[in-house]
Amino acid sequence: MRNPTKMTDSTPSYPAIARRKQAHLESQIPAEWKLPTSSIPPGMLSLEDSITKAQQYQRVNVMGIPRTCGVLNSTELEITENWDIRGLLRVIAEKRYTTEDVVRAFCKRAAIAHQLTRCLSEPLFDRALQRAKSLDRHLQKSGKPIGPLHGLPVSIKDSFHVKGVDSTTGIVGLAFQPATENSPLVDLLESLGAVIIGKTNVPQTMGALDSCNYLFGRTLNPLNRQWTAGGSTGGEGVLIAMRGSMVGFGTDVGGSIRVPAMCNGIYGFKPSVGRVPYRGQEKGHMPGKGRVSMQAVAGPLVRSVADLGAIMEEIVPRAELFAEDCIPGRWQGEFPFRLPETQARNVTIGVLRSDGIVEPLPPIARVLDEVAQALRRTPGIDVVEIPVPPAFTKCQAVAGRLMIVDGGNPMMDLIEGTGEPLIPWLQSWMKRRRELTLSQLGQLQDQRSLLERELLKMWTLNSGSERRIDAIIHPVAPHPVPEIDRYNAVGYTSSFVLLDYPTGTIPVRPVRESDLEIGKEMDAPVLGSWDKANRLLWNEQTVNRRVYLDSPLSIQVITPKQRDYELFRAMEIIDRAVKVRDGEKMAAKL
Amino acid sequence: MRNPTKMTDSTPSYPAIARRKQAHLESQIPAEWKLPTSSIPPGMLSLEDSITKAQQYQRVNVMGIPRTCGVLNSTELEITENWDIRGLLRVIAEKRYTTEDVVRAFCKRAAIAHQLTRCLSEPLFDRALQRAKSLDRHLQKSGKPIGPLHGLPVSIKDSFHVKGVDSTTGIVGLAFQPATENSPLVDLLESLGAVIIGKTNVPQTMGALDSCNYLFGRTLNPLNRQWTAGGSTGGEGVLIAMRGSMVGFGTDVGGSIRVPAMCNGIYGFKPSVGRVPYRGQEKGHMPGKGRVSMQAVAGPLVRSVADLGAIMEEIVPRAELFAEDCIPGRWQGEFPFRLPETQARNVTIGVLRSDGIVEPLPPIARVLDEVAQALRRTPGIDVVEIPVPPAFTKCQAVAGRLMIVDGGNPMMDLIEGTGEPLIPWLQSWMKRRRELTLSQLGQLQDQRSLLERELLKMWTLNSGSERRIDAIIHPVAPHPVPEIDRYNAVGYTSSFVLLDYPTGTIPVRPVRESDLEIGKEMDAPVLGSWDKANRLLWNEQTVNRRVYLDSPLSIQVITPKQRDYELFRAMEIIDRAVKVRDGEKMAAKL
Repeated sequence: MRNPTKMTDSTPSYPAIARRKQAHLESQIPAEWKLPTSSIPPGMLSLEDSITKAQQYQRVNVMGIPRTCGVLNSTELEITENWDIRGLLRVIAEKRYTTEDVVRAFCKRAAIAHQLTRCLSEPLFDRALQRAKSLDRHLQKSGKPIGPLHGLPVSIKDSFHVKGVDSTTGIVGLAFQPATENSPLVDLLESLGAVIIGKTNVPQTMGALDSCNYLFGRTLNPLNRQWTAGGSTGGEGVLIAMRGSMVGFGTDVGGSIRVPAMCNGIYGFKPSVGRVPYRGQEKGHMPGKGRVSMQAVAGPLVRSVADLGAIMEEIVPRAELFAEDCIPGRWQGEFPFRLPETQARNVTIGVLRSDGIVEPLPPIARVLDEVAQALRRTPGIDVVEIPVPPAFTKCQAVAGRLMIVDGGNPMMDLIEGTGEPLIPWLQSWMKRRRELTLSQLGQLQDQRSLLERELLKMWTLNSGSERRIDAIIHPVAPHPVPEIDRYNAVGYTSSFVLLDYPTGTIPVRPVRESDLEIGKEMDAPVLGSWDKANRLLWNEQTVNRRVYLDSPLSIQVITPKQRDYELFRAMEIIDRAVKVRDGEKMAAKL
Repeated sequence: MRNPTKMTDSTPSYPAIARRKQAHLESQIPAEWKLPTSSIPPGMLSLEDSITKAQQYQRVNVMGIPRTCGVLNSTELEITENWDIRGLLRVIAEKRYTTEDVVRAFCKRAAIAHQLTRCLSEPLFDRALQRAKSLDRHLQKSGKPIGPLHGLPVSIKDSFHVKGVDSTTGIVGLAFQPATENSPLVDLLESLGAVIIGKTNVPQTMGALDSCNYLFGRTLNPLNRQWTAGGSTGGEGVLIAMRGSMVGFGTDVGGSIRVPAMCNGIYGFKPSVGRVPYRGQEKGHMPGKGRVSMQAVAGPLVRSVADLGAIMEEIVPRAELFAEDCIPGRWQGEFPFRLPETQARNVTIGVLRSDGIVEPLPPIARVLDEVAQALRRTPGIDVVEIPVPPAFTKCQAVAGRLMIVDGGNPMMDLIEGTGEPLIPWLQSWMKRRRELTLSQLGQLQDQRSLLERELLKMWTLNSGSERRIDAIIHPVAPHPVPEIDRYNAVGYTSSFVLLDYPTGTIPVRPVRESDLEIGKEMDAPVLGSWDKANRLLWNEQTVNRRVYLDSPLSIQVITPKQRDYELFRAMEIIDRAVKVRDGEKMAAKL
């Protein structure tokens, strides 16, 4: 069954392939878009060192450099900084900017971002500019945009396919094997008029939360090089935070959209299965794996809830026409959901404070509580505490086992094929395991059904036949954005893939000095090994807690299966309530 | 893994268990509901002979007996014959009949139907009458129905669970193991006010299309004892045709709702996965099997398209609240489907004349063509021929393999446990096979994805991004209702479970003398072994073709995945077109 591609004398070894790939990447960035050396803060490590010696990185914030480096002119700064998606589409349609101007501005900004963070895997600048010109010709000739996303600069995770371009997913052995056709998502986006400006970096295998690999090196967090940029959609998280693209598409099976959104202080949206075309990402996995185990999904990373709506309202109703893995969807409806015969009522937000396995560290508990308080003060919203359901504590383990049903063997074959080392995040646990038997898989899926069944009651508050909870708020992780390679407790995100609950992240506020004080919150007894490991991220003997200062604190918002539009609506309400609270505090200070 | 329950000296053998079960069934039918011997046509065989000597049955139609036997009084005949679902609900709400009157009338009629056809497995008459009385008290006291289906008599396939009642699925070894809780569908129906009046007969293992087993014997077709009643929801098909219940719920993985609907001349509706709660039917299968292979679905059998709408409009929006295997759904929308920016257009019906593996026999081809002609004459409808897509011809084989991924071993363990023989339909192919490996399963599911992908194009006519076909018409089977144990070519129905396309059946007209003439239609070369077998059902050397006279000819209607409401709308339009055509012909004769 397995087809090991062991390295032979004639196989080029990984450093040679990686060097060739790096040179190819560099060649895609025009000389005039290269940063002056004076603009690059010191301490950038070589590709290999960025992986293995990441503890050498210093606290550096590069967010301001695109504005100060001189590569972008004032119009390009205006184009990349002044608009949300709908605004930008409007000014393109009104011909205030040409599509070419817009696309060039974002390509340049993406190139700058990449030079500071290694966020790109495949720049597609030439292709994007060609397409921009053709869109301009269309607009000029017909007077109308080609589609509702005419000219929108979009970036995609490396794993999506663009015809003629590699999709290596960070595996050296997959370099120089260009895709023979586009992913359905790419076809869909382009049919709407969007312009793909590049593909972004991921972890080796995509099965890690730190985006580094031996082809493209490590993607760095632009807010602070010491923090992880997250993964597996890490390059995308960075690129969107740095305004190098208007929207990025990632994938998520354990948290791979939501974790980098949290780490980079932006918004991530993990839809239900079937809302956004995903197909074609099974390189390095057993064929059919997603379908029989736990299906990863595709979804957007953006800079506002409004941008989420702007992109999803165009994709969701069309997805079923472009991809066989998608379902019919509408991007409208009543919220809160109710049955025809029931009366209108307040929106009810449940507060789920922990996964029952890992106790959130004090700033995490505090920010969730602040959001709950802000919601309590918001007219039309009821807030309900949700005790951790026993079934919820079991989700992480089932999700974890479903992720590795094929024993990781097809992936290990690929890695061993060129002799590349495993990245640090994978070294501790990635190894060949036995493929499950069908009966073992069936038992796992049966356990999953039981968990789903038990957790139905969470939404009805055991009432049996009426939805009582419209959305739930929950931490994204039990810890703040950690240092590189120290992300812990993926259960806070993977459980909602197991359950197929759509889930989004909202950045709330940065960590403040006052959050660093030891609180009484950690007096609770240790819950187990995961909990113990998590406390090492807060214990002053094992971490300099000040590293977290200014890091973005986020929350997750969750709705029931396939209630993606309702998730968007809930995120709108919660995001607004949080902003109102901040506004009030600001007003109180004046 | 396997837990074989081999017969030991202390295990009662199957005849003893079956006798005890039969006695229990008989005891549920009150003496005053027993048919006078004079009302029962001759030629009923014993339980065992009904299975093994079915070729002894003669052409007998028992449809008129409920009206003539004297067990039902005139009010009971009126109650059971004069109303569709909405009409009956209205007159109950208006207190024209008490719920008790209605439920008693249907229980009696179900008891009569059972005595003529062996359609029931578990009569629930006492339970139903108790519940009817309590509904009457509620209506009396509050002045309002308890829910939108207040008092509706409903029947369910044996495999659904009612607390305290067996769900044997025709396996002797599962007798006398009452369910400890209701199926979610039962809870949902009862929450709406429906009254479950009984459970209905199925084939041994449910993996056959003739409903017979060693606990309850063979269910007979009430139109003609020589024809199969179909399966696996055979008892339900018969009970609904005989007006012994207002709506029956069955399950379908290979055709088990649609085949008995066709055989008994009624309407069957196989929804997409997640529209109607299904959970809890995996007895005799590997746990989790449906989830990793091909998911069976639950759906209704009724006597009109209006009744389909009346029941689905109440279930679909609530299903997600009652069962973890269900999804959000609405029972409304625009038809034909179109994107916001596209213009209104005619409904477009595709005609898919064959599955490419088995050529439909002449009356089947003819009736499909008649429906296509009637649609062509209907204003607002466009009709388009769909050449058989090559991918479609591969669906049956993949579906067939997915149905037996566990090798049938858990089922064989159950059967061997009491030593019961296999029923004739199963003898030819049911045996222990090897459980697939996970990789083999993954490959199958990967093939399935490829087929789904190819068949997307069927709906867009290769246009890429626009739906061009709203619904497809197709035969239910390549042959008319065959004689007992001669059903062939399940691919006409199973393919749409593989693809998760919602699919319904519409009875069109009976076979006429003119259909029996040998047509030039069968000149085509034989396509393969399935096609060869199918022609034996038409070859005068192997069948007396006159057996088909008056048997109901039906068609299938199909829409894309999760477009269940649109399927209902298409069925409405097609059913009306067919009836208008019949009306015109009738008018022309006068």
